[in-house]
Amino acid sequence: MKTLSDAFEHTLKDIYHAENQLVKALPKVQEAANGKKLKDAVAEHLEETKGQVKTLEKVFKSIGKTASGEKCDAIEGLIKETQGIMDEMTGEAKNAALLAACQAVEHYEIARYGTLREWAKVLGHDEAHDLLTQILDQEKAANSKLTNLAVSEINKS
Amino acid sequence: MKTLSDAFEHTLKDIYHAENQLVKALPKVQEAANGKKLKDAVAEHLEETKGQVKTLEKVFKSIGKTASGEKCDAIEGLIKETQGIMDEMTGEAKNAALLAACQAVEHYEIARYGTLREWAKVLGHDEAHDLLTQILDQEKAANSKLTNLAVSEINKS
Repeated sequence: MKTLSDAFEHTLKDIYHAENQLVKALPKVQEAANGKKLKDAVAEHLEETKGQVKTLEKVFKSIGKTASGEKCDAIEGLIKETQGIMDEMTGEAKNAALLAACQAVEHYEIARYGTLREWAKVLGHDEAHDLLTQILDQEKAANSKLTNLAVSEINKS
Repeated sequence: MKTLSDAFEHTLKDIYHAENQLVKALPKVQEAANGKKLKDAVAEHLEETKGQVKTLEKVFKSIGKTASGEKCDAIEGLIKETQGIMDEMTGEAKNAALLAACQAVEHYEIARYGTLREWAKVLGHDEAHDLLTQILDQEKAANSKLTNLAVSEINKS
């Protein structure tokens, strides 16, 4: 990898892999969550994530590439951490810890999409820039929802 | 782990481990960076990170505990990703990719400190809350600096 175009494509494959891993992991989080409120929030985010996979496929298409993933160490670590919470926590704070883990994932995604849409702009990939901005806005909104849920429903319970 | 207090202590150990890993990793990033501007920014963040390790030790003390770390899968994954960039990238986009990796780490930390300081408040750990808020503000400022550097100095070069 030498050029910004190489880095863009690599990072796109990395986040495509990450979103696909989340489509597999979120049903387990939904199962592990206590109570309807968090289960519903996770279910909603799962649907949103499936939509983001489709949007990323449009991004690949817009730059003349076929969508494919590349192993992403960061998301593997974040999911492993979430799995640890599901395995080790049993009591009242399980939801709080699950929410915190979901927020760590959201922040990772916000970092990645922030970078990708900026690179898309520099590279002149206008359609990709707009699609990535759409996803970035969704991730920011999802993170705000998780913060509100964490603060109002769980930490203060 | 059952209570919010357990989760707080676990996450504190996790971020303490993460900051200590970063103190080891950042000199390698500094070495790999091209040009004085990014090298200086990384050096500055290394000093800030060392200060955060000390501040975290005060947080542990404020809750009557001795500082200790616990392996954190997420930061291991993020550092592994950064190492991959240092190993695989050679050309003009190396700085852009390094900056992006640093921002992913910053976002992870922002997520973690946001959670920790909220939990500290709920648990009545007022001193810990204030110290963690200090670090959170530093991480947000560091991330903004990296964004400015990425946008103005590297992506547009």
